[in-house]
Formats: sequence, structure tokens, C-alpha cells
Amino acid sequence: MSYNTFGKLFRFTTWGESHGPALGCTVDGVPPRLSLTEADIQVYLDERKPGTSKYTTQRKEPDTVKILSGVFEGKTTGTPIQLMIENVDQRSKDYGDIAVSFRPGHADYTYMAKYGIRDYRGGGRSSARETASRVAAGAVARKTLGDGITIRASMVQMGAHKIDYSRFDWLEVKKNPFFCADPVTAEAWATELDAIRKSGSSIGAVIEVVAEGVPAGWGAPIYSKLDSDLAAAMMTVNAVKGVEIGAGFEAACLTGEENADEMRKGPDGKPEFLSNNAGGILGGISTGQPVVVRFAVKPTSSILTPRKSMNAEGENVDIMTKGRHDPCVGIRAVPIAEAMMALVLADHKMLHKAQCG
Amino acid sequence: MSYNTFGKLFRFTTWGESHGPALGCTVDGVPPRLSLTEADIQVYLDERKPGTSKYTTQRKEPDTVKILSGVFEGKTTGTPIQLMIENVDQRSKDYGDIAVSFRPGHADYTYMAKYGIRDYRGGGRSSARETASRVAAGAVARKTLGDGITIRASMVQMGAHKIDYSRFDWLEVKKNPFFCADPVTAEAWATELDAIRKSGSSIGAVIEVVAEGVPAGWGAPIYSKLDSDLAAAMMTVNAVKGVEIGAGFEAACLTGEENADEMRKGPDGKPEFLSNNAGGILGGISTGQPVVVRFAVKPTSSILTPRKSMNAEGENVDIMTKGRHDPCVGIRAVPIAEAMMALVLADHKMLHKAQCG
Amino acid sequence: MSYNTFGKLFRFTTWGESHGPALGCTVDGVPPRLSLTEADIQVYLDERKPGTSKYTTQRKEPDTVKILSGVFEGKTTGTPIQLMIENVDQRSKDYGDIAVSFRPGHADYTYMAKYGIRDYRGGGRSSARETASRVAAGAVARKTLGDGITIRASMVQMGAHKIDYSRFDWLEVKKNPFFCADPVTAEAWATELDAIRKSGSSIGAVIEVVAEGVPAGWGAPIYSKLDSDLAAAMMTVNAVKGVEIGAGFEAACLTGEENADEMRKGPDGKPEFLSNNAGGILGGISTGQPVVVRFAVKPTSSILTPRKSMNAEGENVDIMTKGRHDPCVGIRAVPIAEAMMALVLADHKMLHKAQCG
Amino acid sequence: MSYNTFGKLFRFTTWGESHGPALGCTVDGVPPRLSLTEADIQVYLDERKPGTSKYTTQRKEPDTVKILSGVFEGKTTGTPIQLMIENVDQRSKDYGDIAVSFRPGHADYTYMAKYGIRDYRGGGRSSARETASRVAAGAVARKTLGDGITIRASMVQMGAHKIDYSRFDWLEVKKNPFFCADPVTAEAWATELDAIRKSGSSIGAVIEVVAEGVPAGWGAPIYSKLDSDLAAAMMTVNAVKGVEIGAGFEAACLTGEENADEMRKGPDGKPEFLSNNAGGILGGISTGQPVVVRFAVKPTSSILTPRKSMNAEGENVDIMTKGRHDPCVGIRAVPIAEAMMALVLADHKMLHKAQCG
Repeated sequence: MSYNTFGKLFRFTTWGESHGPALGCTVDGVPPRLSLTEADIQVYLDERKPGTSKYTTQRKEPDTVKILSGVFEGKTTGTPIQLMIENVDQRSKDYGDIAVSFRPGHADYTYMAKYGIRDYRGGGRSSARETASRVAAGAVARKTLGDGITIRASMVQMGAHKIDYSRFDWLEVKKNPFFCADPVTAEAWATELDAIRKSGSSIGAVIEVVAEGVPAGWGAPIYSKLDSDLAAAMMTVNAVKGVEIGAGFEAACLTGEENADEMRKGPDGKPEFLSNNAGGILGGISTGQPVVVRFAVKPTSSILTPRKSMNAEGENVDIMTKGRHDPCVGIRAVPIAEAMMALVLADHKMLHKAQCG
Repeated sequence: MSYNTFGKLFRFTTWGESHGPALGCTVDGVPPRLSLTEADIQVYLDERKPGTSKYTTQRKEPDTVKILSGVFEGKTTGTPIQLMIENVDQRSKDYGDIAVSFRPGHADYTYMAKYGIRDYRGGGRSSARETASRVAAGAVARKTLGDGITIRASMVQMGAHKIDYSRFDWLEVKKNPFFCADPVTAEAWATELDAIRKSGSSIGAVIEVVAEGVPAGWGAPIYSKLDSDLAAAMMTVNAVKGVEIGAGFEAACLTGEENADEMRKGPDGKPEFLSNNAGGILGGISTGQPVVVRFAVKPTSSILTPRKSMNAEGENVDIMTKGRHDPCVGIRAVPIAEAMMALVLADHKMLHKAQCG
Repeated sequence: MSYNTFGKLFRFTTWGESHGPALGCTVDGVPPRLSLTEADIQVYLDERKPGTSKYTTQRKEPDTVKILSGVFEGKTTGTPIQLMIENVDQRSKDYGDIAVSFRPGHADYTYMAKYGIRDYRGGGRSSARETASRVAAGAVARKTLGDGITIRASMVQMGAHKIDYSRFDWLEVKKNPFFCADPVTAEAWATELDAIRKSGSSIGAVIEVVAEGVPAGWGAPIYSKLDSDLAAAMMTVNAVKGVEIGAGFEAACLTGEENADEMRKGPDGKPEFLSNNAGGILGGISTGQPVVVRFAVKPTSSILTPRKSMNAEGENVDIMTKGRHDPCVGIRAVPIAEAMMALVLADHKMLHKAQCG
Repeated sequence: MSYNTFGKLFRFTTWGESHGPALGCTVDGVPPRLSLTEADIQVYLDERKPGTSKYTTQRKEPDTVKILSGVFEGKTTGTPIQLMIENVDQRSKDYGDIAVSFRPGHADYTYMAKYGIRDYRGGGRSSARETASRVAAGAVARKTLGDGITIRASMVQMGAHKIDYSRFDWLEVKKNPFFCADPVTAEAWATELDAIRKSGSSIGAVIEVVAEGVPAGWGAPIYSKLDSDLAAAMMTVNAVKGVEIGAGFEAACLTGEENADEMRKGPDGKPEFLSNNAGGILGGISTGQPVVVRFAVKPTSSILTPRKSMNAEGENVDIMTKGRHDPCVGIRAVPIAEAMMALVLADHKMLHKAQCG
């Protein structure tokens, strides 16, 4: 089943293929009278767009967004906002191999198994180009959240090489091509990724995204928990294979005494937590602490080394993916992570207001 | 926002509190003419029910399920199936501390922050007793999937102690109180958990759940990916802090060559994969390989060591959770994991049939 | 596809068959801290319950509701509210004919065509007993709406005999067995329905339901218009064949001058409308005027005259429905109409608050 | 709450305002491998487009549709189909009055009451231009239904003047500017509407839409009944004030004997109904007979006679709607009716297949 909508109240529906004429999304449920311009959205698209460093694909896409509806005289009207990005660099290349063979690690075979047809050009719908729509929608979500909530993400691991959290500084994120909050590690990664890139290989990564300023009480107890919605959101991003909240998988190793975040009365009468293993969420509902999510991104499956595969005729073939690819797709997942966090929070802000506001 | 329904076509809605008269669920969308009896469901509830070993809470609950609708002469009719479990052991105890104080690691504070009211008896709606409904619904989901799909789970880590996969044997799972596929590790865990239990502490765990027989093509490309639905499903289970598919977080450390599962033509003309880092899912759609999900469960927050907290009046207090608790809630998460896998797959089976069947 | 949930934020899911052990519903999304007791609900169930006059079925059902979850110390907690009504009068009768033959005008054939199985006892899931759950849920919806909104319904036509609106008085509704606001017509109907009842026949009716106090601005422009949600809601009630808003079908006969309700500035600065052809809704959004809905109920299909039909073996048969039936099901549709109006409005109150509150 | 999506499995989301750069829709859930071209869609848009006779608005809009995604080499791929229609004739006129005053019968006031802002140009989102998207989506729905299902609509009443059903002939529908199956009445309407048009007034209408070839068993018993989904669908169309199925409001006047459609065994073993008061639906599920829906359209609210109203400053004003308007919007509702029928049926075809296929 095709399902291209995310969210319950703040909903967005994306459409478009990698090499079609355009792609975009409809953002529905947006509160009225928020100021919104194309520039408000473009700034986030520019962070995600390809070709900004040698560590991202050299496909040239300006990723210019147009607002086609839902905004009048610079303000949202409460009606659906259509955001469109035209594809420019649909390089007219020979898709020969990809058209008939299934690239390992890609969705070629599964799309064929499901639909019996696929738009193979640049990966079609399975291309990460779809995430441009999410980043655009995320910009609208941030408007909905307002200035009190800050959402930031950092790449915190490349391959097995993790950052040193003692050097963590959000201000560093925009200063290096890895969106990395630890400048020393970023420098080391540069050398490592250069080697990987030159060898035609690729590498995985881990991203951490943090939302500060989320009030206590957002979320829901059972099947739309704030953490389960976040897990779903991050797991929908291309190449993501794992998601964790707060202490995450490390929590398995902890005792009850170590894990449960103690509280003391804070200056405003609200609890002040002495740790944040919960990642800002207990019982599916925000605690008022920072909401902390991490997710693992697998290495780009498009590599220059030939791999064993099959073609649509059922013959064994060896396939090598030529063309323009990110040696570490985790890098461009950083702005997407922020967008997904914003989108989930905007939805929960509205859901909370509806029942308990 | 309260949201107590899961699934798109195969939908279940749960209700009930830990110490209310009963709890249960409505399972809607079930195909007609499947044979279904209370015994078909009871067998799974018996696996999850408390008090089966010294490693689970000593609360005595028979967890007897009644089918109140949707089944006629032993067959499903296509109308909603209501499953009810009466609460028996609502021990009339003094809730003194819990009633007014927020237990660290529990949802006490967040429910209060959200709703301004909470049923504190036994944790109310946030109690893991809610998962009995899921296990019951999961039994109906298995009927929907049919015999061709096998779903099994094992605890694979307790604290930092992981199983040895070279000893992995599904037949062992029902032979030890840990639902552990590695009998040697299970024995070691017994000693370790005894010590933890006696000290009034608790410990976390990791569960692995595997579905075999899932055909290629189930799932969806973007926002209802098979993996994102599974991530959401597992993350809704009490105490879960992380979810991963296939290689999961390990994928971050791999190169593209290592990660992308190669294919060769199999005897039936379908691809045979040479590895399963993808965990049976590519681009949100099943590959035909086993679907492999792991998730981390935090340690039980109810422990005998006093912890710093606050009460509803905003005063600092120290709180200790007396009563009957699981020293490792991960154990009873095993049958729940299987149920959630079955529920997601039943939904996707129907979604696939609708569009591509 | 079985689909037993109604509403987007204020959602209820019903379950149960006419002759099963019980029926009920889960009401989800209810705001917390509303006072709610079984008595608050019972008062509405008593209006709908059978056997209150000779004009309704003589099946004896106390329709006693139990609250099984979601209420703590007399207040809603924000978690799902389970309401259960046990079936008492499941008269152990011979279902012979009904079991194998398709009653004309009933859903016997269509259920069989869809599901290949049906619970024929008393009509199973297609019985109007399901509406008891709606009336129970409607009582919770009224609590959500608060005292500022008044919802009342009247039967306004029986057969071709319409009431005289010049005698319309809401206070009369509870004084006659027809829930009719025109006492003179009610008296005439009594004579007419007596004759119909004695002849073993039945007759249709029209119900009007009015909500006063709905503020301007509830609803939505396109696919969840207040009027389309109301139309859907009323059309889900058993035996309903038509729904209209305000002037309804009469609007087809009007000119633009006659139809468009003119406005003047009211004492509070808001518009005062000089007529209400719109039935309180323009562009899918409430105007602040009374919301007026009417719907047509077909005559009870269970009649004593034998009718031509088929049985499950494909043989022609003549079938006569013995047993206890309402000669005019429209009567008992009156409290159901009020409940459906309350349920739609509660949903839209919350939807409005989420986006524009 | 803004809600711009319709359908459960076959879903479409519309966007766009009357005088924005473009409008369109995303059609999601479409089965793969259906042949689909822009011409397949254009033929239906051409029926709805303005300016085809003197009885429709003289706004000049080619309503040319572009497929931006979801189709590859002339076949649907199962991914979302984006259909876009650029607005051409956004006549740069003086919106003076409309910009600040609330036109009676229009949604001007209610949008302002809801959102506190509105795009007044040509009615913005409340303009019937939105229905172009529905007609486009309807063409995709027809492809999903296949050739076995025929959907046709006719205007059957203009003002109080009804057609004579004894002259009903589907072949006549495309031969007159009223989409009327009775050519004699169509001729009389021409004279009547000329007079109305010249006087600057307008008139209401009733449309009938019939689907033949729908198999028995589509629909659902309770809250997604085929009839309630159809009622909702038709009631979302601009200016619709009433919907009825089969005998509709006339059913209120019938006795049980008259109303219940008798059955005899048909040549194929399936029942042959002796009448169709049910309009092809019993208990929310199709019977295999033609599905018959009628709905009432109010007269165009834009008329040349000044009407009493208010402006945004709360002052009493008289307002007259100049410009290009349909004297009977019912005419252009005919292709929209067919589209909505197709959209509901496509959804139910898929829903049925999912559970019972």
C-alpha cells in the first residue's frame, strides 16, 4: 500500500520522483496567520541540497521552493500549503544497468516485487530526493512551534568513530561539512571520508537530534507516544536502520537505580531532573527536559565496487553503481532529522491543545 | 491527545487500567471465516501472564480472555471482535506514596503534566498490564497471517550480557524462564538476575523478534514503511528505548561493500540473498528474507532503593516503590514483541492486498 | 472492510451483536477532568431503550451501562472510556427462517455477499441495537460540549403526515411517545400508528435535530465540512435514506435572492442572520446560527406480510418476519439523532481548538 | 481544522485557491500498472470547465492538467500521482467590496470567523474551482474501477421543475447544456434559465448519479457504510444541501410492504430485485443493483440584486456580486457528481479486497 502522508493534525503528503519534472508536498492543518515566505523555507533546503561540499553528491539541484497555495499576503490562511520544487538536473544519462538490474542495498527489487513496475530513473520514488519535501514541510512545522522551541542536530558518529561529547558545541555544527558539533572529530572525519570517497566506497553514521523547550505534557500514553511517533518518523528517512531515545540501547545495560532520572523541585516549582536517560519522554509524554533522539544511517549502497546481483530476467549479474553519490548519506540526514523532529512536535503540539489545551 | 488505536486496516483499540474492573481491546478489520476460539488466544496470554517464575511479578492474574463479539459458531464474521480480560488481583493496598508522589522513571509526573489528573492505582493506564490486550489481539493477527508465517522472539541480552549467537536455537526459548534461545546464557542470567532481584534492583534487556515466511513486497515506500511501522509498534511497548532493524546501529560502522546484501538467483527464480543486514526490508518493503527487529528495554523503574523525587505539592521527597515487580521487564516483553510483529504484518498483508493483490 | 470507528479526535469505536453477551464502545480522546457517572449516560439510554411504549419493540432490555475504564473518582482521566451494556433479553427463539433466508429490506443478503458468513440472531451486527453504544457515547460528547450547547430533536413527519411548525414547542417532545414537538400532530399519529401496528405493517418518518449555541467557526472547508460530517453521521444510522441541512432539498426550488440568508449587525457586533436556509453552515463552517439537520428513516422492514425472497440455497421463498418490532423505527431514531449531533460537534470543537484555538 | 484529504485507501488531497498560481491534487494508493495519460483525465475536466455554454460562468480557463508524478511510461507505478492545473484567467480586477464585506450565502464570514484571515480573491479556497481537482482524481478512480462499472449523472430538477422519468435516456445527457437525460425538459429549462440569467438571479437544482455494475458486497456495516461515505462525498461538493439514496426522503412516506425490495432468484443464481428503493445499498453494503444517489444544490449565491450584509468592520452594508457567475451551479455539479461516485467506489473496491478479497 502506498502511503505518503505523515501526521494526524499537522499532516503533510509528499509526491514526486527523483527524475520527474518536480516534487513537493501538501502541508495541511497549519494554523492560520503565521508569517511564511519562500525564504523561510529555502534556508533549510539550502542546508540539505546536494553539491555543497565534496562529501555530497555532485548533482546540481538549486532546490528552489515555490509556495503555490495556502499563503496570502505573507500569512498562512489555514488552507493547505502546496510546496513545489522543480527538478533541474535530470541528467539525460544511460540508465542501462539500473533499468534492468536490482542494485544490492537499494529498493529496486522490492519495488518490483510489490508493484511489478518501477521508475528506475535515479531510484524514482525511493530516491532520497523525496526528503527535500520533508525539509520544506519542516520549515512550516518550525513556524507552528514558534521561537520557544529549538531543534538542532549533529552527526555524532561516522563509521565506528564517535565524537567526544566533552567537546560538544552546537555553534560548531554549521562550521564544518559534517554538521558535527565536535570540531576536532569533524577534522578527522574529513581525512577518513576523503579516503573512502576516493576508493569509491561509502560509510554509515549516527545522527543525534535534540529539541529544547518542549513543555511537559506533549505526547500520548499508548499508540501515539511521542517516542513512537519519533521512532516512526526517523525510520521513514532513507537508509535509517535504528532509532533510540535518551539512553537508548545503553539502557539495557543499566540498573534501575542508574536509569531512573531523579527529580528535585526546581526554582519554578516544576521538577528539575538530575539526569536525562529518558531522553525527555516518560510513558510516551514529554517531561520538559530536552527530547533526545539518535538514529543510525547505513552506508550508501551505491558504490564503485561490483556486487553480485540479479536482473529482471532472473539472471545473475555483477552490478556497479556509477554516477554521483554521497559517500556518507548520514551527512545530509542532519537537516532531515531536524525537520522530522519539528514535524512530529508540531503535530503533538496541536494534538495536546485539542484535548488538554 | 489520547490515542489508543493501532493499525490502518487491521486495527485494534485497547482500553483499561491496571486496577480497574477489566481491560481489553476491540480488533477491527479482521477477515471473515477464520476459526477463532478463546483457547487460540489464551495460549499467548499464558506466556505473558505474571507470576510464572520468580523473575516476574508475583501479582496473581489468570488473564482469562472472553470473546464478546465478532465470532459466530467459532468463526470470525468480519465485524469487530471484543476481547475482555477481567482484573482479579486488584489488591486493596495503601497507595499512599504513589498517590501523591511522582516515581522516577515512571509516567506519574508526565500524566499529571498532561491531564491534571491520574489514576495512580498500580500505574493506571501506564501500567504494562495494557499489553495483555496486545497479546490477545496478536493472537488474532496470527490467524490472519496464516501458517506460512512464523513469528518468534528471544531475549538476546540482559544487562551487558549478550547471548552467544552460535548457540542460538529457537527450540530452547520455551525451556527457560527468559525466553532465551541460548540455554547456556539463560543459565548464567538466572544467577545474575537472582542477585539483582534479591538486592531490590532491576536490569535492562534486549529482545530480538524474527518473522519468517513474509513474502517480498509487503510494506510501503515512504510513510508507512514496514520498518517504520515496526519501529513505532515496538516503541509503543512500555519501557522500550530503542529499536533497530537488521544490522541496526551496527550498520553505521559498515562500508557500503560490507552492508549491501548481495543476491544470486535462487532455485525458484527469486533472489537468494547472501546476507541479511537489511533485516528483510529495503526501501520500506519486505525482501522475502526473515524480518529481524531488536529493541532495548530499560530496567524496571520500580526498585527498593529510595530515590529523590517530588510530590504533587511540589515538595522534595524520597520515594521507594514497594510491592510486586519484575526485576527484568524485558522477559515479559518477549511475547509482546511477537504480538506486535504479528499485528504490523497482518496490517501490511491487508494493505498490500488492497493495492497490489 | 469493517470500519467501526467514528470521529477524528473525539473518536468512538463500537462493538457487539444483537444477541451476543454484550455490546459497547470505546470513547477515546475525551478531555480530562470532566465529571462523568453512569447516571449521566443512563438518562439518554433510557430514552432510546425498547419497550417504553406500545410503539416500540417489546423486547425487554434494561440497557444498563457500565463504565469499565477512563473514569477515576468521578472524573474523566483522558484515557479511553469503555462503556458496556450487557444483553439480557436474548430470547432463545427459533431463528429458522431468518437463519437461512434473506429478509427483504434487511442486510441479510448483503452481509452474506460481503463476508460469506453472518450472525443471523436478531440481525447480528446489523441490528439497531448497535445504536445503544452511540447514545452512550453521545452522553460523553455532551459533557465535552458543555452547557452552552443545546441539542434537541423531534420527529417531524410520519408517513406523509408532517407536523405543523407553527405549533413547534421543544417542551412537548418528552410528553408524547413520538418525541414530537407538535402535540396535535402527535395525537393524530397515535391513531395512525395504532392502525399500522395492528395490521402488522410499518411506516417511515423524518427527524429534525437542532443544535443551538454552536459558535461561528467550527467545521472545515473541504473534506471534513461540518455538514458532510453530519451527513455521514446521520446516514450511518440504521434505516436512514436521506439527509439534509437547513433548507435542504427545498433549496433546489429557491432563487439566489430567496436562499442567501441576509445579515445585519447584531447587538454584540456579530452578524444577525435574517433567515437560516443555510442551516447554520456556510462553506462547511458554522455561522453561529442553529445547526439544523433533517433525515429520512425508511419503514421497518420487519413486517407481518409475507414477501418474496431467496434463501441461502438460492431457492425462491416467501418470508414473513415474526417477532418484536418497532412499527416506526423513526421514533427511536430521535435520541440517536441527538447523540450523533453531539458526537460530530464534540469532534469539531476539538479540531477547531487544535488549529485555531 | 483544515482537512483536505478524502478516502481511506484510495486517497486524494486537494490544494489551491481560485486565484492562486495553480491548484491540484495528490492521488495516493492507486493500484500499479494501470494505463493513465493526461488525455484520460482531460476529457472529464473538459466537461466541468467553465465557459462551455451561456449557462456557465464566462471565466476562461482551459483547465489543462499535468501529471507530475506517479506515472512512468504511461502506467501508474503505485506511488502518489500529482495532478496540477494552472490558473490562467486570474483577471486582475478590483475586489473592493468582496475584500471587506461578507457576501450572503458565501463562506466569507465563516472563513473569517474560523481563521481570522481569508484569501478573498474569487472566493479563495471556498471557490468551486477546487472541484476541478476532484474531477481529475475521479478520472484516476474510474481507471481503478475498470470498465465493468459505469457511472453516469443527470440533472433531474431545476428549480421546482423536475424531469419526466418516462423520457429518461442516458444518451441525451451529452446533447444538451444541462447534462439532462430528458431532452424535452432540457429544452424548457433553457428558456427558464435564460430568463433567470438575464435578470441576474440564479436557481437551485437536483442531480442524480447512478453507478451500474457494482458487485454485491462493497461497503461496510457501521461507520464507513457505502451510503454514508457517498453522503459525505456529495455533501462536500460546494452548494450541496441534501443527499438521498434510492427512494430517499420518499421512503418516509412508504409502508414496509411498499419499501422493502422483494427478491427472486435470477438466472445466475444471484437475487434479482423487483424494485430498487434501497438505491442499491442495504446495511451499508451494495446489493448488486445500481447505486442511486441524488443531491440538492442551492442556487448560486452570487446575484446581481443587492443584499443586506455586514463588512469586516462590523458595519451594515448592501452588497451585490458583480462578475462572472453560473446562474445554476447545479449544471457543473454533474461531472463532479460522477467523479465523487467514482472516488468513493474506488476506495470501497480496495477496502473490500483488503478484508474479503
